Amino acid sequence: MGDQEENQNQSENENEDERKSHVGFESYVVIHNIAKRHNVGTLARSATAFGVSELILVGRRDFNSFGSHGSTSHLRFRHFYSLSDARLFLKEKDCDICGVEITDNAAAVNGHPFKKSTAFLLGNEGSGLSAKECEVCDYFVYIPQYGCGTASLNVTVAASIILHHFAVWAGFPERTRDGNKFVVAEKPVKNMGRNFCTETAESVTEERKLKRENDAVNGFFDETEENDSSSLLDAVFMD
Amino acid sequence: MGDQEENQNQSENENEDERKSHVGFESYVVIHNIAKRHNVGTLARSATAFGVSELILVGRRDFNSFGSHGSTSHLRFRHFYSLSDARLFLKEKDCDICGVEITDNAAAVNGHPFKKSTAFLLGNEGSGLSAKECEVCDYFVYIPQYGCGTASLNVTVAASIILHHFAVWAGFPERTRDGNKFVVAEKPVKNMGRNFCTETAESVTEERKLKRENDAVNGFFDETEENDSSSLLDAVFMD
Repeated sequence: MGDQEENQNQSENENEDERKSHVGFESYVVIHNIAKRHNVGTLARSATAFGVSELILVGRRDFNSFGSHGSTSHLRFRHFYSLSDARLFLKEKDCDICGVEITDNAAAVNGHPFKKSTAFLLGNEGSGLSAKECEVCDYFVYIPQYGCGTASLNVTVAASIILHHFAVWAGFPERTRDGNKFVVAEKPVKNMGRNFCTETAESVTEERKLKRENDAVNGFFDETEENDSSSLLDAVFMD
Repeated sequence: MGDQEENQNQSENENEDERKSHVGFESYVVIHNIAKRHNVGTLARSATAFGVSELILVGRRDFNSFGSHGSTSHLRFRHFYSLSDARLFLKEKDCDICGVEITDNAAAVNGHPFKKSTAFLLGNEGSGLSAKECEVCDYFVYIPQYGCGTASLNVTVAASIILHHFAVWAGFPERTRDGNKFVVAEKPVKNMGRNFCTETAESVTEERKLKRENDAVNGFFDETEENDSSSLLDAVFMD
């Protein structure tokens, strides 16, 4: 027991040192071709819990449902039509792009292989990251598994574990608690009309035009499941 | 960079020491009054991924759907009608019972506050652990949150993060991978007729009788949502 306590104290001191050296780094989530809508709502909830700076949607975008939100009104969203545009944006912010995928050279997430601000690119639930998606990644993390009953984790569960580890590594300040809940902030003032979507009305109009042109190419969801243009952000805000 | 690498190596060595000292410990999940059925399927998937020994259902039990399973045919299930019976079983196995709840004295899960084999008791999604549920717990863990947008995590996400940390702490041997998936074992031989449910036909009949008597008292799910006697294990096996 004495040894265990000593180890724990030592470990806590190191965690403290680790935290201090990583202050100022941020996390981002990039979602591209996630097929199951109900995953996105829970993902957004975890993203805000773990201090994610922005949730970046690549591909299809639907503005209409931005009004109906719960906890996610505090989460900042951004949209790109292509992965390469998203990559450019993230590189301008000096972010690593980290693919969440079980590749041969992927690092176990509990080893905290992070180096600086990081955007985590999530694979599709069925097929994981495509070759094209892997190309934009600087490195990969995976979550070790131990049992024999499943080939992979639910994508939101996987993302949540990784965002949790990044937050611990980065030493984000812990949110105040009130009883057995973390304190939720007042809803932000909608000074941009659409929560954190900072685009002007004109850019929205332009983007909608582009969106119609791109819809045939960039289906954000598996279109065979349901063709509902307002469904993505409904899903984001329903949880 | 040199410092960071040295820190990482040091940290890896300590992880190795930590693992060696905890071999032989097991994890269990106890679920009681989880209201949303779709959470149970994803929970079972995470439980098998993270090497959980048994998923213990307390309250209502439904046998009929035990045939329709996916990944969860590899997970062992056990049922008790009361929390105190579950507690007795776990104490005979020398398990700690750890409540997953944000209490004043809860320990952050990333500090690995585990001591031995541990059963994790999950709270209801809405209200968390009840006073009666807290009474059977030896200690509590919580997951630190950093953002302002949500009071708590999805219950399956929370459980998954905790089971992941326990598996790392306990040094479970990592499952073999094949390409970008962990290898799933052959489905186990159903030598007991109902996968891992080791009861005899007679005990099942007896338990069904008891179950009918207990149903009015021990509704496993929020009965206002849907009254479907075969729904729990449908949910467990549908994911």
